[in-house]
Amino acid sequence: MSTLILLRHGRSDWNEKNLFTGWVDVDLIDKGRAEAVRGGELIKESGLLPDVVHTSLLRRAITTANIALDTADRHWIPVRRDWRLNERHYGALQGLDKATTRDTYGEEQFMLWRRSFDTPPPAIEPDDEYAQTDDPRYAGIEVPRTECLKDVIERLMPYWEGPIREDLAAGRTVLVTAHGNSLRALVKHLDGISDEDITGLNIPTGMPLVYDLGEDFMPTRPAVYLDPEAAAAEASAVANQGK
Amino acid sequence: MSTLILLRHGRSDWNEKNLFTGWVDVDLIDKGRAEAVRGGELIKESGLLPDVVHTSLLRRAITTANIALDTADRHWIPVRRDWRLNERHYGALQGLDKATTRDTYGEEQFMLWRRSFDTPPPAIEPDDEYAQTDDPRYAGIEVPRTECLKDVIERLMPYWEGPIREDLAAGRTVLVTAHGNSLRALVKHLDGISDEDITGLNIPTGMPLVYDLGEDFMPTRPAVYLDPEAAAAEASAVANQGK
Repeated sequence: MSTLILLRHGRSDWNEKNLFTGWVDVDLIDKGRAEAVRGGELIKESGLLPDVVHTSLLRRAITTANIALDTADRHWIPVRRDWRLNERHYGALQGLDKATTRDTYGEEQFMLWRRSFDTPPPAIEPDDEYAQTDDPRYAGIEVPRTECLKDVIERLMPYWEGPIREDLAAGRTVLVTAHGNSLRALVKHLDGISDEDITGLNIPTGMPLVYDLGEDFMPTRPAVYLDPEAAAAEASAVANQGK
Repeated sequence: MSTLILLRHGRSDWNEKNLFTGWVDVDLIDKGRAEAVRGGELIKESGLLPDVVHTSLLRRAITTANIALDTADRHWIPVRRDWRLNERHYGALQGLDKATTRDTYGEEQFMLWRRSFDTPPPAIEPDDEYAQTDDPRYAGIEVPRTECLKDVIERLMPYWEGPIREDLAAGRTVLVTAHGNSLRALVKHLDGISDEDITGLNIPTGMPLVYDLGEDFMPTRPAVYLDPEAAAAEASAVANQGK
């Protein structure tokens, strides 16, 4: 038996500007920092004690973890980071305005890029200002040029089956601080959600989602948001994004 | 050849209140956060690229590292934390006002506690509100009840000889974000400073100190502060603290 806490980063600068972000390393805005504080308070009030934190290599998840853990008085726990927890790479859409993209390409294409399970957006050019071609944090890996959710699942699962399960197997309470799509990939696996249904699932920001896992690392009961009412309101707001 | 960067945390709440801190886990004040930003800017401007960061288990060092690395665009590097990098445990003095302590016990005793190489302050009682008796971050270790600088060196050196040298041996640029006395212990070793002289050495806060190390993990040239003029001014101010 072990406990897994998923926490999606709070609102970022490009959420606010309504731009496709993906692997672009934007910062949290003040509202996002406040969400991270609230996430930390919820963890603290719940009595859960994360023993280790896993984050992506992106600032908005790293800062969310730093703030939430500081708030929960667990700032001192071990930290593990990996690119496999990164947000979905949004390809050539990175840096584009969401509303403009929808107007240009139409609702159907827009929703296909945003929500299709296996259709990635067009690939970003390696010399695009929002590509991660020579970013030193990805030295040694082949940086994606675009990803669909299926691609995210493929690159995420080895990290779930490796470092995260290793910590869970040691009986640690594991906090994973990451992104809408990398967390969606994890939830799909844990809750056995179909390829069709997963694209409609929205994980609210800054709201810890808690899984009790059995020896097979699968849930022993349905996961719970630490603040269920706020989570429901937030999920419905996210679903309306870009409209 | 490898590079070691030492960074002392910025001003904390209890620096400001002029209280003995030691292992009490106080937060940075805004000035301390600004020092961390400045430290990160100096690292960025220098072109140094930390590959890994080592911190103590105390919030003021952890937050300093988080802020400085975020400022230097190296927020994504691996993190290692250990109690052996903690500040000197100040024993029964933890939580006491420095000026009152000096008035009560006299200048000679006051300076002995602050600066003696091998005379620790009186031990803190395990049930003192400022003891770390049941603090979960120290589970599995015997928490000190007081320490002199000699004690700090003894508990720090295995960490230098182990995890830090392991990273240096791999050719990594290592950032160590810690405290006045844990960094003093490292500098004593690296610069071959005597037991007598080390107690007079002050390491300024928020000012990266850079060592180029050879294959024997000893300096190949004198260490440099990234902002030498500000460092000299700051060191003289620290020397006058409590006066």
